[in-house]
Amino acid sequence: MTQFLLNSKLACSIDIADRGLQYGDGFFTTIRVLNGALQLWPLHWQRLATCAERLGFAGFNTVAMQAQLSADSEQLLSMQPVLAEELVLRITVTRGAGGRGYTPPQDPSYNVLLSLSPMPQSYPMWRAQGVTLALSQQRLGDQPMLNGLKTLNRLEQVLLKQELSQLQQQGSPDDLLVLDQRGHIAESTAANLIWKKAGQWYTPALQHGGVKGVMCQSLQQQHRINAGDYPLMHLLEAEQVYLCNSLMGVVGVKQLRIDATTVHHFSVLSQACCELTKRIGEDE
Amino acid sequence: MTQFLLNSKLACSIDIADRGLQYGDGFFTTIRVLNGALQLWPLHWQRLATCAERLGFAGFNTVAMQAQLSADSEQLLSMQPVLAEELVLRITVTRGAGGRGYTPPQDPSYNVLLSLSPMPQSYPMWRAQGVTLALSQQRLGDQPMLNGLKTLNRLEQVLLKQELSQLQQQGSPDDLLVLDQRGHIAESTAANLIWKKAGQWYTPALQHGGVKGVMCQSLQQQHRINAGDYPLMHLLEAEQVYLCNSLMGVVGVKQLRIDATTVHHFSVLSQACCELTKRIGEDE
Repeated sequence: MTQFLLNSKLACSIDIADRGLQYGDGFFTTIRVLNGALQLWPLHWQRLATCAERLGFAGFNTVAMQAQLSADSEQLLSMQPVLAEELVLRITVTRGAGGRGYTPPQDPSYNVLLSLSPMPQSYPMWRAQGVTLALSQQRLGDQPMLNGLKTLNRLEQVLLKQELSQLQQQGSPDDLLVLDQRGHIAESTAANLIWKKAGQWYTPALQHGGVKGVMCQSLQQQHRINAGDYPLMHLLEAEQVYLCNSLMGVVGVKQLRIDATTVHHFSVLSQACCELTKRIGEDE
Repeated sequence: MTQFLLNSKLACSIDIADRGLQYGDGFFTTIRVLNGALQLWPLHWQRLATCAERLGFAGFNTVAMQAQLSADSEQLLSMQPVLAEELVLRITVTRGAGGRGYTPPQDPSYNVLLSLSPMPQSYPMWRAQGVTLALSQQRLGDQPMLNGLKTLNRLEQVLLKQELSQLQQQGSPDDLLVLDQRGHIAESTAANLIWKKAGQWYTPALQHGGVKGVMCQSLQQQHRINAGDYPLMHLLEAEQVYLCNSLMGVVGVKQLRIDATTVHHFSVLSQACCELTKRIGEDE
């Protein structure tokens, strides 16, 4: 179902010594492809470039590499017999093979991996109807070395999804709200959070950990959104709460279950009314 | 130079959709092989089993799997034309391919990967002469979900090794001392720390992050070692300081550079005199 392009060639396997596998030594981004067009591509490239810089992938941030990734994306899309309206393009970069243990090789040969997958089926329904959240029992780590970056070190998210899957066996929720080590609001299992309270917009600054999403960045460029450390109570007093990421777009949160007996409800404005999504819609 | 066995068969590549690569969804251990014999194998198996349990790798912890790993190790060792006195065996387990995004597949097919590599050349010299440390400018993250586990999420260690490599271009040190988010002593770039002060032994408890090493565990089983959260000053007042991991064994620390002008010196007892290494030596 998913097709892979490795260094511009169709591939179904990769060097077993790749540092992406051995140490999680790499980063990625996932892009919404709408009718064959990459959405928010400049911001996705910027995310990759930021990861490359912070993780010491010297020589990655070039105009030639950006052009190569565009060309690879075109190539992979052109291989589809039928182009679905929505697709997910993932671009992954690893430091390739080599080095001595954790120490990167002096002259690394990066592996650049593109894949094209179907859009998660739930997202259109989420956008139309909103979602329910529950408060996670786990808390996101504090990793200043990696804060904000979408690296290949995603085990925390895997564990959060396991917690979610177990809860869903009892019927709900759609996603989890995850706090950080200090008890501040961080993110959901795979999306950022934005909320409106007394006429002001808020989002976590994610200075200690978590992934700064491209959709959230895009919204911050268009709207005045306060970014900081906020306790759970701050969000509970909100009138509107939204999840956002590149694939789902902006999705209203209908309710948040805190524990077995406490459920908070939020108003969910239809997509046409919401200031955030309206502006995004216009841009597309 | 490194040979790989994937699910009991020689391999040089792996499914590009493997979750170990895509999300760092897996764990590993590295074992010293001395004259063909796996050192501390029961503790290494226990480490793998603990990782499997905490990361939700259901069905991994079986007597059959332990026997299979032993058999795979024998097979890989028997393939060597000449058996070096010392080798490094790495056992890696990933959750295989599949699932929807971060969500693991309901019925995962684990990939089990063994590799055999030469022992790092520096370790015998380190054991004989001791090492120099410098205080890292970076601090290890706080990840209670993953604390103590040797998962495939090792980007922090990669970044620490990059910092070390840059310092070594100016001639020293051999390794870095890394503190945690609270400023407590955590570990080196790839080893645990043990020190002696006023007749007592100490080691970091690593309750918030870091990797609990098999060699350190072995030492803790044999000696009375206090485990807790200790500030840098505690270690600076030590008479003896040691690094330890499964590959290097126990290595004395000669000096610790705190900044450009401050260097602390420790006495390094020769291997024959040190209580810790003596006992370890007897067990081997």
